Amino acid sequence: MTRVLRGNIVSAPELGRLDVTEHGYLVLEDDGRIAGVFDRLPERYAAAPCTDYGDALVMQSFADMHLHAPQYPMLGMGMDLPLLDWLNTYAFPTEARFADPDYARRIYRRLASDLITNGTTRVCMFSSLHTEATWILMEELERAGVTGCVGKVNMDRNALPGVLEETTEQSVRETLRWLEGCRFAHVKPILTPRFTPSCTDELMGRLGQIAAERGLCVQSHLSESRPEMAWVRQLHPDCERYWETYDKFGLWKDRTVMAHCVYSDAEERAAMRRSNVLAVHCADSNVNICSGVCPVRQLLREGNWVALGSDIAGGAQLPMYKVVTAAIRASKIRRIMDGEAADFLTVEEAYYLGTTAGHRYFGAGAGFAPGDKLHAIVLDDGDFPESAGPLSVRERFERAVYMAHRHNIIAVWSEGRCVVGGEN
Amino acid sequence: MTRVLRGNIVSAPELGRLDVTEHGYLVLEDDGRIAGVFDRLPERYAAAPCTDYGDALVMQSFADMHLHAPQYPMLGMGMDLPLLDWLNTYAFPTEARFADPDYARRIYRRLASDLITNGTTRVCMFSSLHTEATWILMEELERAGVTGCVGKVNMDRNALPGVLEETTEQSVRETLRWLEGCRFAHVKPILTPRFTPSCTDELMGRLGQIAAERGLCVQSHLSESRPEMAWVRQLHPDCERYWETYDKFGLWKDRTVMAHCVYSDAEERAAMRRSNVLAVHCADSNVNICSGVCPVRQLLREGNWVALGSDIAGGAQLPMYKVVTAAIRASKIRRIMDGEAADFLTVEEAYYLGTTAGHRYFGAGAGFAPGDKLHAIVLDDGDFPESAGPLSVRERFERAVYMAHRHNIIAVWSEGRCVVGGEN
Repeated sequence: MTRVLRGNIVSAPELGRLDVTEHGYLVLEDDGRIAGVFDRLPERYAAAPCTDYGDALVMQSFADMHLHAPQYPMLGMGMDLPLLDWLNTYAFPTEARFADPDYARRIYRRLASDLITNGTTRVCMFSSLHTEATWILMEELERAGVTGCVGKVNMDRNALPGVLEETTEQSVRETLRWLEGCRFAHVKPILTPRFTPSCTDELMGRLGQIAAERGLCVQSHLSESRPEMAWVRQLHPDCERYWETYDKFGLWKDRTVMAHCVYSDAEERAAMRRSNVLAVHCADSNVNICSGVCPVRQLLREGNWVALGSDIAGGAQLPMYKVVTAAIRASKIRRIMDGEAADFLTVEEAYYLGTTAGHRYFGAGAGFAPGDKLHAIVLDDGDFPESAGPLSVRERFERAVYMAHRHNIIAVWSEGRCVVGGEN
Repeated sequence: MTRVLRGNIVSAPELGRLDVTEHGYLVLEDDGRIAGVFDRLPERYAAAPCTDYGDALVMQSFADMHLHAPQYPMLGMGMDLPLLDWLNTYAFPTEARFADPDYARRIYRRLASDLITNGTTRVCMFSSLHTEATWILMEELERAGVTGCVGKVNMDRNALPGVLEETTEQSVRETLRWLEGCRFAHVKPILTPRFTPSCTDELMGRLGQIAAERGLCVQSHLSESRPEMAWVRQLHPDCERYWETYDKFGLWKDRTVMAHCVYSDAEERAAMRRSNVLAVHCADSNVNICSGVCPVRQLLREGNWVALGSDIAGGAQLPMYKVVTAAIRASKIRRIMDGEAADFLTVEEAYYLGTTAGHRYFGAGAGFAPGDKLHAIVLDDGDFPESAGPLSVRERFERAVYMAHRHNIIAVWSEGRCVVGGEN
């Protein structure tokens, strides 16, 4: 059944552009695809049932393109160490708990609920190395209405012996078993070598083969911190740059997702562009574990594809509206570091990175593109402090990005279905 | 009546030290003063009524030592300009609205409520230049249970002509009238020349006289951004450093409060120590309007007195637990900028800056010091995600600072009275 949503419709179809349709109409086809956004409702939809969101903002939902599901239990803790120590001291022991499927079920149900109620409808996510827990994660996401990609993590070296480890053979065997069991409509598998120091050459090679044979995408980490990069150079003395350690094994390819890219130099940035690799900027995490400040503006200027990630739990903020403002702040810090010449990200730009730039990964068009299944949030800013004068929808949008809380998100649409606050 | 609070009692009596009394007792004398914190309840208090907060954290409340009340309506908006342009384009027009007492009443009632329910029980606050609105602000804070200092702003030059301005004579006359009308038990006046570019020499001199005659404290801004400092040098070619422009007029003295101090050099930092001037670090604001990153660690190492401020609305976050984590992040950014040698602020340290360091300004002792009126929050973290294992109270404290939301704060005590979630 065709249906109509009414409200102040806001989308970011391209970097720096914000489309605002005040008291407009968003029409959905019966399969949840967008027919169009209209100032005035076309005559042909006059009989369609209408959900009137009143003066609320109907905005694009968010895509969180990098986060570690099994680190959710340690959110907001243990951020007194740099990356490599932080992994061994905090992250790995926490991930080890996910050998227990009951624990995984409880945490992942909560995570899926927290994602969707905060307006994140698409993810590109790391699980742990546990096959069962990874299925449970995918199942819980699917149930909650969170769509996207999840990867069982591969790590056959430099793990935590006796606590969190797998052999090369186990890693490959479990990956294949996991892939066999992935039968979810909206949550798809993605190959996930943790990062170069975690994977032997043999494992990387096998994963490259699997990726090629099955047409699977790949996600991993790249040039996040300087000590990590030094380690990678030691491990692969034949590779001049970090990205080559993935390329060598067929893991650097169209739509490979690389988190961080804080220290990627001009060559590495060019390699990303050549292969259509997505760089995921994780501003909060980069600061929390003292990795660095990613030059996002430079990546964008050069034409790189950049989206945003919460990077839970190096990041301490799951809601993507917080991640968007963290990215703005990080870009302002770059400006402080680099001098006045460096532009910071505007709210429109950062919001684009947290929405369209990520949704593109899953085949979506720009903004609320006709033909796309609807991914949207409805945001009621009625409890924000009274402003000094009437606000434009653009100003309300800015304030919403900075000040939203979960309770302001009164409805969420994912894959064309209303999954939070729904009437259907 | 003597009474007992039971819970996990957490305080930061000195920089880097956290006192934790698990399932302890905090005893209050009948006037709301702290008798002591105890592992086991002393026999002599056995008959006193006890409020049992169960497994919740009983923590020090926060002191917000720099914020602009009349900028609350623009929270989370207009942060695309550096300081001086931002003032003219956003801040001054918003402040001009406070000529209207009804508007002031509505906004300040909301602000006072938002402060206290987020656990801020002491403030050092800028009002606008309006006398009536300033009284209203003080009244609303007093009513809500927020204590501390508020200043009518003085600005007789470089204001916004026709919108927000006062002459020298008006400024002095209104200041005296305002002081006459300040009769609030827990909210006291503080002299508030906006910043050097806003005040003529004559006005500064008159304020210095008033401060001396009436024993009043002073608050203002110092070395926040480079263009501002260049402007101050132009205005006062005889002053080598910004602080001297206050000192010249008797405004730099014991317990003067100076917001920002981002670019204060060694001489200026020494001048602060000599005069017992409080430096208020406003991390979020400094990033939002691209001012810079304050070297807080250096100030602390040298023995300067540093507390924290939300700096609403350059800052976009009113809750001080957010301001505390913003200060941690800023210190990590300094580390990224300055190299590994620079220590960042630990959670304990930043929490100390947001609590004891500010409370000291109002005569309080260290942590939950016997003899002090109780300023505390009770934080229920029961809805945080399940952790990977049992957490110590120290770990729960860390998580609470990073993840708290207003709804987690189930009670607030201010000046010895329970003002939120109370049973008395």
